[in-house]
Amino acid sequence: MQTIIQPGRAEWEALCQRPKIQGLNLDELTQQVFKEIERDGDRAIYKYTALFDGIVPQSLKLTPAEIAECAAKTPEELQQAIQVAKANIEKFHGLQKETISYVETTPGVVCWRESRAIEKVGIYIPGGSAPLFSTVLMLAIPARIAGCKQIVLCTPPGQDGKINDAILYAAQITGVTEVYAVGGIQAIGAMAIGTESVPKVDKIFGPGNQYVTAAKQMAVRYGTTIDLPAGPSEVLVIADDTVNPEYIAADLLSQAEHGPDSQVLLLSTDKAVAEDTLVALNRQVDRLPRKDIALKTLKNSKVIVLNTIEECIAFSNMYAPEHLIIAGDTAENYIDRVVNAGSVFLGNYSCESAGDYASGTNHTLPTNGYAKSCSGVSLDSFIKKITFQKITPAGLQNIGPAIAVMAKAEQLDAHSNAVTIRLKDLKNV
Amino acid sequence: MQTIIQPGRAEWEALCQRPKIQGLNLDELTQQVFKEIERDGDRAIYKYTALFDGIVPQSLKLTPAEIAECAAKTPEELQQAIQVAKANIEKFHGLQKETISYVETTPGVVCWRESRAIEKVGIYIPGGSAPLFSTVLMLAIPARIAGCKQIVLCTPPGQDGKINDAILYAAQITGVTEVYAVGGIQAIGAMAIGTESVPKVDKIFGPGNQYVTAAKQMAVRYGTTIDLPAGPSEVLVIADDTVNPEYIAADLLSQAEHGPDSQVLLLSTDKAVAEDTLVALNRQVDRLPRKDIALKTLKNSKVIVLNTIEECIAFSNMYAPEHLIIAGDTAENYIDRVVNAGSVFLGNYSCESAGDYASGTNHTLPTNGYAKSCSGVSLDSFIKKITFQKITPAGLQNIGPAIAVMAKAEQLDAHSNAVTIRLKDLKNV
Repeated sequence: MQTIIQPGRAEWEALCQRPKIQGLNLDELTQQVFKEIERDGDRAIYKYTALFDGIVPQSLKLTPAEIAECAAKTPEELQQAIQVAKANIEKFHGLQKETISYVETTPGVVCWRESRAIEKVGIYIPGGSAPLFSTVLMLAIPARIAGCKQIVLCTPPGQDGKINDAILYAAQITGVTEVYAVGGIQAIGAMAIGTESVPKVDKIFGPGNQYVTAAKQMAVRYGTTIDLPAGPSEVLVIADDTVNPEYIAADLLSQAEHGPDSQVLLLSTDKAVAEDTLVALNRQVDRLPRKDIALKTLKNSKVIVLNTIEECIAFSNMYAPEHLIIAGDTAENYIDRVVNAGSVFLGNYSCESAGDYASGTNHTLPTNGYAKSCSGVSLDSFIKKITFQKITPAGLQNIGPAIAVMAKAEQLDAHSNAVTIRLKDLKNV
Repeated sequence: MQTIIQPGRAEWEALCQRPKIQGLNLDELTQQVFKEIERDGDRAIYKYTALFDGIVPQSLKLTPAEIAECAAKTPEELQQAIQVAKANIEKFHGLQKETISYVETTPGVVCWRESRAIEKVGIYIPGGSAPLFSTVLMLAIPARIAGCKQIVLCTPPGQDGKINDAILYAAQITGVTEVYAVGGIQAIGAMAIGTESVPKVDKIFGPGNQYVTAAKQMAVRYGTTIDLPAGPSEVLVIADDTVNPEYIAADLLSQAEHGPDSQVLLLSTDKAVAEDTLVALNRQVDRLPRKDIALKTLKNSKVIVLNTIEECIAFSNMYAPEHLIIAGDTAENYIDRVVNAGSVFLGNYSCESAGDYASGTNHTLPTNGYAKSCSGVSLDSFIKKITFQKITPAGLQNIGPAIAVMAKAEQLDAHSNAVTIRLKDLKNV
């Protein structure tokens, strides 16, 4: 990690730059796969699963019996841990439901909003080394609370053609309505377009590699929306002299192990704390199974010493981190100053991995600076809010003249007519 | 308009298809303009304003004196109408503020969300024949209520180099912080990238033609987010035998005059009402200044006779209209059945133009079927919700073991360590 001592404000913007990622150009490949799915349906899905994953699945959809059988194999201790997380995620997201507020903006003009669940949602869970059952919880639980009718889960089969037991356990207990053993571009394409086996959905959620990201961007052109713009995971930790450097080091490493393109930043008001954290970091990293990944991340990462916590928060707002840990005893004093962040962890015992798994908050969050304009996934992500209005004859007499004047001024005469034709009748009553 | 009598369910999906729009491929042009803005800043803006708009502006930013001078020229009657609309839009959007709910998901684990305004927002207002000052109200008012610090408005100058008076009046009274006389791709590019004159913003709002739409898509690749996917405007009207066909005809035309790619649909349970509406439509359209546009829209449009209002709503949910008018005396009985729509107008006096201008609801709404997964613009569009959590030592002892088990099962040992290193210390206390 590079250490920078008290950089001037003029240098902050450059320090906030994320490492540039040399992305593949996958537009053409994605377009081809999507076009074949449009034309050939399931046949294209089988073809690309064989080509990309080296597997010829017997069928795409898992039967309830297959799901139940595998789910039951999840170790008892893990089942219990998942239930703890599930209960907390349900509590936190359950309270995000909105009640309806009716507003009479003018006598006779009543307006309000009502929430409706998005009917069909798709959840993508990546394959690879780690089975991300926690992401199943983070997406399927709010979908279920929102009332989504169809909750479709796609995840690539392993080399044995099977799906991880814990992913199926999480799917089973959260109300996922169907599971398909398909991954990558072809999974996203199937959910965006619909095939004989896989239903077309209205919105697609979930993380993935560059291929999945490119496919989600393509899905938008097919009329499907997506959860969030993609980007590598990141944490920014603010530490004063009341923190434990061992804890800070552990928190930085928990982010660094995610992937080699992650970024971790430590801002400290105390040079000794910064140094002690680096010492602890170097010791702790050695014992990690994912040491190589963590070391690559640390190369992109920085320790910055600033004068005050206020300065650290100002820097953090410019960076807009996905995860912000304000460690130390006075963390809560700074809540109001936080403007741009995905999720904030306060004090010495609120470690990021709590929010990643089990405290109840969602772990699908805006990265790459998108925290400036995006929220993380919540119940809101699974609903639309529809506006309603009911105008009485008296109400239209109150606001109608203003509408007619404005419409005429915008040269939209038919808009004006729709009001005046009614007002004329009301005058004659 | 094409009339279809009692189509079978199997035909509905085809009837719900929007007219295909033959779009230009503007990727290359947009990319070029954006790259030049990155390289040349304002110089590129002047170049493309001269090239596309045929104007060489003296400066891009309007001074407060220029804004005030033009705004004051807005006719008194129009100023008053705009004030009526403003008051209602403020009332409706002001009530969308959320209070904070703290949730103790497990003893010692407190989670909550807080809203923060997006700091810098950009509003694009198209030029052309009609000065869309109403869109200034619909975007700047919620931005101001949300607390956005910088509300940037870009709109192309007319051939005289000036901006429409009413647009500037609306900007002035709604708290727009700066106005730039720049339009098209170069306006969106300027707000996405930032130049010497025009600030980079976090999110871009507002309607526009194909060029603006392409530029908004490009802006997303530059880390800016946008309000909604674009699409032509549309209305679906549901009418039984308690409606006034003259009113329905006027409502259909108020949508049809928007642009030749708009679409209007009339679903009726009463064949005579459908016929009478068509007669009224043909009479009313003749008197419209925008008759040619309206007639083009009507060619893409359909009258469909169905058996019951329930069937009409089911069809409407499949179509997912931007605007849904449920005319007739019993409209309110069907509210709960509406699942997919942008904004709903109930009864014989809630005409769409009320919502377009002055009832208080927002007129920036999801089109082209996106109402299945998107809400219209609201206060929510100008804020992010940040999650916070504060975990006490006891709280971490409660949920820590579950986190450690889950992290280990996902093969993320550093995530597990961040918890166990703290739990170990707590055991030793």
